Amino acid sequence: MKVSQSFIPTLREEPGDAVIASHRLMFRAGLLRKLSNGLFAYLPLGLRSLRKVENIIREEMNATGALELKPTVVIPGEMWKESGRWDSMGQALLKFKNRLGADFVISPTAEEPFTAIVRDELSSYRQLPLSLYQINSKYRDEVRPRYGVMRGREFMMKDGYSFHTDDDCLDDTYRKIGKAYRRIFKRCGLTVIPVKADSGAMGGSGSEEFMVESDVGDNTLLLCRTCEYAANVEKAECKPDYSPRLSIDLAKGAAQSIPAFEKIDTPNVKTIEELCAFLKTSAKTFIKTLVYRAVNVELEEKPVAEKFFAVCIRGDLDVNETKLTALLKAAEVSLASEADVERLTGAPMGFAGPVGLNQTVLPVITDFSVTAINDGVTGALAKDLHYKHVAYGRDFEAFMTADVRTVIAGDHCPSCGGELYEKKGNELGHIFKLGHKYSKSMNVTYLDENGKTQMPVMGCYGAGLDRTLASVIEEHHDDQGIIWPITVAPYHVLLIPIKYDGAVKEATDKLYEELSKAGVEVLVDDRNERPGVKFNDADLIGLPYRVVIGDKNLAGENPKVEVKRRTEKEARLVDLSTAAGELTSLVREDLAGFILI
Amino acid sequence: MKVSQSFIPTLREEPGDAVIASHRLMFRAGLLRKLSNGLFAYLPLGLRSLRKVENIIREEMNATGALELKPTVVIPGEMWKESGRWDSMGQALLKFKNRLGADFVISPTAEEPFTAIVRDELSSYRQLPLSLYQINSKYRDEVRPRYGVMRGREFMMKDGYSFHTDDDCLDDTYRKIGKAYRRIFKRCGLTVIPVKADSGAMGGSGSEEFMVESDVGDNTLLLCRTCEYAANVEKAECKPDYSPRLSIDLAKGAAQSIPAFEKIDTPNVKTIEELCAFLKTSAKTFIKTLVYRAVNVELEEKPVAEKFFAVCIRGDLDVNETKLTALLKAAEVSLASEADVERLTGAPMGFAGPVGLNQTVLPVITDFSVTAINDGVTGALAKDLHYKHVAYGRDFEAFMTADVRTVIAGDHCPSCGGELYEKKGNELGHIFKLGHKYSKSMNVTYLDENGKTQMPVMGCYGAGLDRTLASVIEEHHDDQGIIWPITVAPYHVLLIPIKYDGAVKEATDKLYEELSKAGVEVLVDDRNERPGVKFNDADLIGLPYRVVIGDKNLAGENPKVEVKRRTEKEARLVDLSTAAGELTSLVREDLAGFILI
Repeated sequence: MKVSQSFIPTLREEPGDAVIASHRLMFRAGLLRKLSNGLFAYLPLGLRSLRKVENIIREEMNATGALELKPTVVIPGEMWKESGRWDSMGQALLKFKNRLGADFVISPTAEEPFTAIVRDELSSYRQLPLSLYQINSKYRDEVRPRYGVMRGREFMMKDGYSFHTDDDCLDDTYRKIGKAYRRIFKRCGLTVIPVKADSGAMGGSGSEEFMVESDVGDNTLLLCRTCEYAANVEKAECKPDYSPRLSIDLAKGAAQSIPAFEKIDTPNVKTIEELCAFLKTSAKTFIKTLVYRAVNVELEEKPVAEKFFAVCIRGDLDVNETKLTALLKAAEVSLASEADVERLTGAPMGFAGPVGLNQTVLPVITDFSVTAINDGVTGALAKDLHYKHVAYGRDFEAFMTADVRTVIAGDHCPSCGGELYEKKGNELGHIFKLGHKYSKSMNVTYLDENGKTQMPVMGCYGAGLDRTLASVIEEHHDDQGIIWPITVAPYHVLLIPIKYDGAVKEATDKLYEELSKAGVEVLVDDRNERPGVKFNDADLIGLPYRVVIGDKNLAGENPKVEVKRRTEKEARLVDLSTAAGELTSLVREDLAGFILI
Repeated sequence: MKVSQSFIPTLREEPGDAVIASHRLMFRAGLLRKLSNGLFAYLPLGLRSLRKVENIIREEMNATGALELKPTVVIPGEMWKESGRWDSMGQALLKFKNRLGADFVISPTAEEPFTAIVRDELSSYRQLPLSLYQINSKYRDEVRPRYGVMRGREFMMKDGYSFHTDDDCLDDTYRKIGKAYRRIFKRCGLTVIPVKADSGAMGGSGSEEFMVESDVGDNTLLLCRTCEYAANVEKAECKPDYSPRLSIDLAKGAAQSIPAFEKIDTPNVKTIEELCAFLKTSAKTFIKTLVYRAVNVELEEKPVAEKFFAVCIRGDLDVNETKLTALLKAAEVSLASEADVERLTGAPMGFAGPVGLNQTVLPVITDFSVTAINDGVTGALAKDLHYKHVAYGRDFEAFMTADVRTVIAGDHCPSCGGELYEKKGNELGHIFKLGHKYSKSMNVTYLDENGKTQMPVMGCYGAGLDRTLASVIEEHHDDQGIIWPITVAPYHVLLIPIKYDGAVKEATDKLYEELSKAGVEVLVDDRNERPGVKFNDADLIGLPYRVVIGDKNLAGENPKVEVKRRTEKEARLVDLSTAAGELTSLVREDLAGFILI
């Protein structure tokens, strides 16, 4: 392809709203243009790379035995009402009515249509397992789309759904696809951090996120300096810095040695810091008590629309609301309003505590950290009053005891005890065991070997194409531009004739012919521009190899051209007669380096 | 691919709502499933064929020098407001607001984003021509989606847009893409009828539709039995069956020989038929007058929201509302209500006529046929009264005189005079010269050689993928199932082991290996089903070659397999040892037959 015949509008200026390198470079190198906030058009160069990412994903998914389907982007709302997500998905789900008044959504993911298709065809266990996927446009109504295609409104996603007779079979597919994801990202030249959601306790992981490090990442990751532990802060656990007492009897035993709790006046003391200063002690002796409002709590058979809980945690720690939400099987939790706190505790904000609390209206949830405090300070349910000598088990009990602590850098790895540190990360992929969620809500059944009706167990597997591409650029660039890994480069080689004319044109055309014939993808900068402009654009666009063809090197008995990798500082002279062969070998070797066995 | 590992749910029963063969067979052969009215999911087999159509289109478009882009499916409404189509497009355009209240559309075509992208990059004539396209999901809010993917709500479309400095350059691209379309449909195995919109008068065609014959086609085509003339009834012309008088003076001259017009009583006569019987004459002597209401009439600088016209046409002919709409540059025309007719003509419905009509409130448009009537009958603008001896030019003149006649079978070809006949057709593609419509409304400019600001002239080029695929099946099937052309068949060869076990399995696997290695696409029906079931499914799915591997033919010194083309009645025995080689040659020959030079 000749540059003059393509559409590669490179820019010297940086787009004003671009904060991160990939956004900046995708615009400057002419890969992308903006249609409006969060909506982007791929131009020819960008689309070539996007399709390469797409093909890598397709190849690896097919290799797992998954089958590609193509449902629509617009999905009937009825399906979403069946699954329950019509109401539960929130405002990121774009709903609309068509002219006949029927409800539709623009697909953000596609559990519903895949489940509906399988439901209609499934009758016997013999048809299972089934692993299906699509690579298609998705839409999420982001309030603040930003960072270019890293967080756009419309994006390309590979989303897969699998159906199984039992957990072992699901585990098998889940593991295969987990491996495929590692290969996909490796083939794209990416370093990903696989983050398991829950390691250990449940006898295997139910979800795994594939993260790349990013300064503007949506996610905070906790990583161990010693072992391979990696967790999303939303679910991260840590080795406790106290002796956990998991039984109430142990706690009661420990409390025998301390005096009975008693009231202390704490006038004008409002924060934990002030209390520490006032009592001249550490926050680790405080039982911090926060009142939470939870929505759609499903702890019992019948979900409860709204319920309040008092959450007790050691004074120096923070409550992790994601863990709390999961613990309560709630749709959402948030701190209660001042009015609710006063109504439920009988005291102004800042003086809640578990001792003497009416747990029928406000059940207490204690973090594990609190079970180890046997001489603590806590609010006394009245203005300017606290209790001291408070002990869990002796002075109060809990409705539930659990890990609801936010793990932070400096905490210790739950696997090996090593020190944890933080990174920001962006999620490129997510694989997830769905269990019976959709087969139950959408009523999918089959007959097992014994003719008994069963529900299939499901898994789902998502990966974002645009984000993956942008992340490749994040990981592979320098001040001059992109440095494409050969697997996703729009072309392999850029030919730069100093002036596309005469002997230079002839040599360029010959190289183009020979390379193309050998399957090497070539772009020719045939523009009538100064060499400096062409060299700058070459670095910006970042194809793996650059070949400069000029009169000076072509002159003489042994005509030569300059060959340079994008990663190298200096070019070297190569005989024109052998240049195509040599470049073909280099490209093939580079590509072979990405063939994973 | 093994059938047991794919997802090919064939059906013995025909889907209840399937009227046409392609719809029926796409469901029965497991290519497609319905998500809801007008929304379909492609299953693995259907998707393979759809992708082949997509690749043929991509190859041929790239060969014209067009460049592939990928804008979003969801497009900002602002762009549509700029182009004016936000209001003019009607209800088939799906509009919605997102959660922030911003307007969006789901793309039915994409003139706006392509024009906006080019506008932002275009500065100099040196950047032109530009020919861009996408292959992407589209949505049209059809009120009555039907015939499966032949008229769905969401569909895949290739839509291209070109930008030029002048008409010659546009003509060149337009011709190239017209040729590419012929190749695309031919390579898919389709017989298309290219229908030019206006041949001759304007010095070249401004639009060409690519139609396939279909009993349920949306379009009525008029074709000449003698020459290659083909036209959509919406625009078809014919050789008139009278001596046209195009000047008013000619008409006046002819009228000299007849008596002055006079009133006649026509009590209880309402229809043309009754009038013919009453006056004992032919409908060809009547000047039928119809009152039309036109919306958004752009005949003058300033468009008029609503305007009424009296349209006069010979009694035996019908008014073509599409021609009338185009003539009036209106958004839409329809017959006026009874009340409007009475108000504007001063007479009840059925007695309108051009003589004595107040043309300042109701201008008269006469079809050319009326200019040749010099002794006619027409309504006298009063109940139960007509005029006879009426002559155009003498007794009334017209605001406009034009061709607004509906051409029907039996009329004569405007090119050669041959007899015209009708066919129903479905449009698969449409190429169109847009002129300055979008460059003007969206304000696209560039500087020409002289530094003067100019607007590019545009073309647009659409083709429907799903319709093309369905049409392939319409053209290639029999009572048993689909008969795939090799170019778009999901696989080339179906291997049917009678029982996938022992020596039969071994031979099947060997054939599979050898064929796959040679690049032949093979499906193996390894199911544990009766041969009859497998043979029926083979005919239904319709792959070009079927190979049956059975114990009987494998036994003996010279093991054989049965090979049969889908189009052949009888199979023939082929040596197992040479079968793969022979099939490879056959497949390659078949494919080569579709390589067009």
